[in-house]
Amino acid sequence: MTEIVRENFEQKFPDIVKDIKSSTFVSIDTEFSGLLSSDDFKSSLFDSPQERYLKQRENISDVLLLQFGLTTFIFDREKNTYSSKSYCFYLFPHTFGSIDVRFKCQASSLEFLCHHKFDFNKFVYNGVSFLNEIQDAKAQQELKDGHLLRLVERALSHEDEESVQALCSQVSIWLAGGKPEATATEKTMVLEVPKSSQSSQCIAYVVHHELRRRFSVIWTVPEEGNIRVMKVSPTERTMMERSLTNEAEMQNAVLLSLRGFSRVFKLLVELKKPIIAHNCTLDFMIMHKQFYKPLPKSYQAFKSNINNLFPVIYDTKYMSSEFKKSVRRADAWTSNTLPDLFRYFTLGKGFQLVAYSPVIDSEDYDNEEKKKFHDAGWDSYCAGICFIRMAHFYGALAMGRLSLARPFTSTEHLAFSSHLSNRINIIRGNLSHFVMDGPDPPSHRPEVMIVKRRDGGRVHLDELTERFSKHGSVDVKLVSDKLALVAVSTKGMLQDICREYYKHPEYAVVKYNRIHHDPFWWTASWCSLVLLATLSGFFMYRALHR
Amino acid sequence: MTEIVRENFEQKFPDIVKDIKSSTFVSIDTEFSGLLSSDDFKSSLFDSPQERYLKQRENISDVLLLQFGLTTFIFDREKNTYSSKSYCFYLFPHTFGSIDVRFKCQASSLEFLCHHKFDFNKFVYNGVSFLNEIQDAKAQQELKDGHLLRLVERALSHEDEESVQALCSQVSIWLAGGKPEATATEKTMVLEVPKSSQSSQCIAYVVHHELRRRFSVIWTVPEEGNIRVMKVSPTERTMMERSLTNEAEMQNAVLLSLRGFSRVFKLLVELKKPIIAHNCTLDFMIMHKQFYKPLPKSYQAFKSNINNLFPVIYDTKYMSSEFKKSVRRADAWTSNTLPDLFRYFTLGKGFQLVAYSPVIDSEDYDNEEKKKFHDAGWDSYCAGICFIRMAHFYGALAMGRLSLARPFTSTEHLAFSSHLSNRINIIRGNLSHFVMDGPDPPSHRPEVMIVKRRDGGRVHLDELTERFSKHGSVDVKLVSDKLALVAVSTKGMLQDICREYYKHPEYAVVKYNRIHHDPFWWTASWCSLVLLATLSGFFMYRALHR
Repeated sequence: MTEIVRENFEQKFPDIVKDIKSSTFVSIDTEFSGLLSSDDFKSSLFDSPQERYLKQRENISDVLLLQFGLTTFIFDREKNTYSSKSYCFYLFPHTFGSIDVRFKCQASSLEFLCHHKFDFNKFVYNGVSFLNEIQDAKAQQELKDGHLLRLVERALSHEDEESVQALCSQVSIWLAGGKPEATATEKTMVLEVPKSSQSSQCIAYVVHHELRRRFSVIWTVPEEGNIRVMKVSPTERTMMERSLTNEAEMQNAVLLSLRGFSRVFKLLVELKKPIIAHNCTLDFMIMHKQFYKPLPKSYQAFKSNINNLFPVIYDTKYMSSEFKKSVRRADAWTSNTLPDLFRYFTLGKGFQLVAYSPVIDSEDYDNEEKKKFHDAGWDSYCAGICFIRMAHFYGALAMGRLSLARPFTSTEHLAFSSHLSNRINIIRGNLSHFVMDGPDPPSHRPEVMIVKRRDGGRVHLDELTERFSKHGSVDVKLVSDKLALVAVSTKGMLQDICREYYKHPEYAVVKYNRIHHDPFWWTASWCSLVLLATLSGFFMYRALHR
Repeated sequence: MTEIVRENFEQKFPDIVKDIKSSTFVSIDTEFSGLLSSDDFKSSLFDSPQERYLKQRENISDVLLLQFGLTTFIFDREKNTYSSKSYCFYLFPHTFGSIDVRFKCQASSLEFLCHHKFDFNKFVYNGVSFLNEIQDAKAQQELKDGHLLRLVERALSHEDEESVQALCSQVSIWLAGGKPEATATEKTMVLEVPKSSQSSQCIAYVVHHELRRRFSVIWTVPEEGNIRVMKVSPTERTMMERSLTNEAEMQNAVLLSLRGFSRVFKLLVELKKPIIAHNCTLDFMIMHKQFYKPLPKSYQAFKSNINNLFPVIYDTKYMSSEFKKSVRRADAWTSNTLPDLFRYFTLGKGFQLVAYSPVIDSEDYDNEEKKKFHDAGWDSYCAGICFIRMAHFYGALAMGRLSLARPFTSTEHLAFSSHLSNRINIIRGNLSHFVMDGPDPPSHRPEVMIVKRRDGGRVHLDELTERFSKHGSVDVKLVSDKLALVAVSTKGMLQDICREYYKHPEYAVVKYNRIHHDPFWWTASWCSLVLLATLSGFFMYRALHR
């Protein structure tokens, strides 16, 4: 796994481009600075996709994606082998001009990152910059308006300023006939800009301007990140000043360094390689916000944006739920968190399900030290592995006995699982998944139940939640003081609860579609009117807002 | 300087208490995760104290104080020496139960901390916990409700859980007659709780409960952070269970570890030692929010709260402005940022102004490495030094020739500068300082100017700002499309501008109190009515809201 930080980003960028370009597909993973902006936006079994999207949008409005894992997979048909390359990017929002990002950290999220040995110094000191399209346009505008120099100067630290001064004084020594540190002829010299600094591009930019301002007998041109200084005649100087190429080149260098990781993002968008990720609703939402544009208010607009950017996405969490339905119970996984799923497909039963399963070759993870779950690089690798195993399984399922004749190609792997593409898992919602390239499926969640006390007394959220929780995962919502809705995650639970509360002395529990037939609910006519109105209103509202 | 992190907090706490108790006064400094929540709340020369307070309150609503510097000064009269002790606390808001703090980071603030070599890993991994009074009450309530065990368990990491299991299995081995790792007799054994873990108190708490639940023949008691396990008879066990002391003791240990730095804050509040700080509006606002209570909406309530908590505060920034008025121009400082002021008072002219200036003895800063500005520990030390030099100067000023007779006592130092206490500097406001223990002084800022174009055309914010900025620090505010107010920081600037724009061809500029007498403003009667109404409204509003 190659760790990508500001220091080595430019150097490694060509490799990254090459790996993405030649890959069959890529897998990704991300780490965040927080998850819930407040407890008001917790997920609930009542949530429709639209509601969930809006809740999450609110939750992540200030959250930062601070680590991005990317693994590229290249298939070798001869050897039936996928070879992988993993990258782990640390990201930090560098300031520039009027761009000064504020982001929210959640104490529990940082503690979570601590448990997985996240390096916060690497993040702040050496994180790669990025810009979304709005920020990019702003930076370009500020460059065009000529604000750049002032802004860049302001962004320099004291040490950076010292570097600027040191470089300029090399030139005065040279002009005065002395011998500067760098090798220099009589006509020209090259100033080496310190590359270790986080802001070498900015330093170079300021030095160019400062030298030209101070000395009228020279001109400067950028040269591989350094600065070439040349003695020129007044006529040459005037000519140089009229040409804008050099200025544009320097501005471009600053812009490129600010864009940083966004260039990788743009490449993914451009090449439209299939993208694999595990349980990736939030990942794509934050990517949209951080590298593309602020999240739209409309859920449909979000889906269509993501579908335009990345037309083929596989969520291994969703795939694994479908996968489970296709294998014998004894052979299936018992938990589909990423670590458990990865173990299942590499060490457990999942590995041996089908013949000719491709070999996966990874130099990047040659020792155990590097295999840290919740490191975005490793997690992206794991998601990719799970995908290959499942895609291979679906290939075998589709081809039947023919699958024993020869290994599949990577094109076949993608084709055989294409019915699972663009479905993204929803945690604890009234749907199990979003469909990114079409309308969402109808809800298969069990019906909602209605609960009230038989003595007509008040019902309490906490008490009901505790009462029903022993059957499994539930969410309770008060419609009024005396009436609650209960959503459960499985049909089994629904049956259990209905059975337990059939003729219960304290509580009346009924499925929503039974309410019209159950005489208990219609004893008091006033009460029934209110009830009917409330519930109709509630369901109508939801139907309209879905 | 002693760095205080979670690991050594408990061990060092008694020293800290002793040092604060025996000090004459303490000086403090803080570092933040951000400064401006958005550009909407920038400081302006128009701001009244109330307006400034509300802006800052908005700005820091989610900001975290992540480093707190504290220096204690003890006076030795015989030796005319202050001896100092400096502490630098890293603070991180640990999660507990429903307490899960979200805080905002500003990219430029983190970059600023980078320039000063702040260790972000130390902050997150090893920061000391804290609770304000609201959180404290919440934690106590959750403890009282018996939620603690569940909450603590949930907070444990996987490694912590492994520690819990390992400790419990030592006890089962012991009970089964085997030899556990720890030394144990037949009747009793001590389990060593790993102290290196960030959550050893939580582990201990869970282990107590887990052991008691699993084994009915034992009882556990806390013993210096470890756990003593004793074999007991059923009668003894029942008796133990009835006594609540142990449970209370354990809960208390958890609570103490959660309070962490708030115990130091409480001590400062309790002992009411004079507190020295440099330019400390924000420091006190964030301290109020983070260790005491959310900031009140009323500026007066804030002042009275701070005055109750800390009845004697000295702001060395404010003091230095007053100081400058009392010395010859040639002898005065040229910049009163903390580093410059410190240099002035230790190496520059400020050191030699008065005889008998006390010696300051600091073992903590015996080498240059430790003297890092914007490390809260070092900055607090510097503020203290500046205070002593200025207090001594005021002593000499008050005593005249008598000051040559003998050194002053520390009581005299405080007494001679008491007229400067509880005045806190305001940056770029319409007042120069807040008065914490009384009404704020009337504004001495120059009058506001009114600007319009002579041709009655539109005025533009950016253009006017640039136009007047060449005279110094200005703020421009549009009252309407065609009318602007301009505030400047000094009377000299006001004169310069009025002189330059006297009979200016494009712009008419007039001081606010002149407007009634200047015929130009009253040429168009309709226009003048609107102007008068607008301005009266504006100044009336401000007068009422001050």
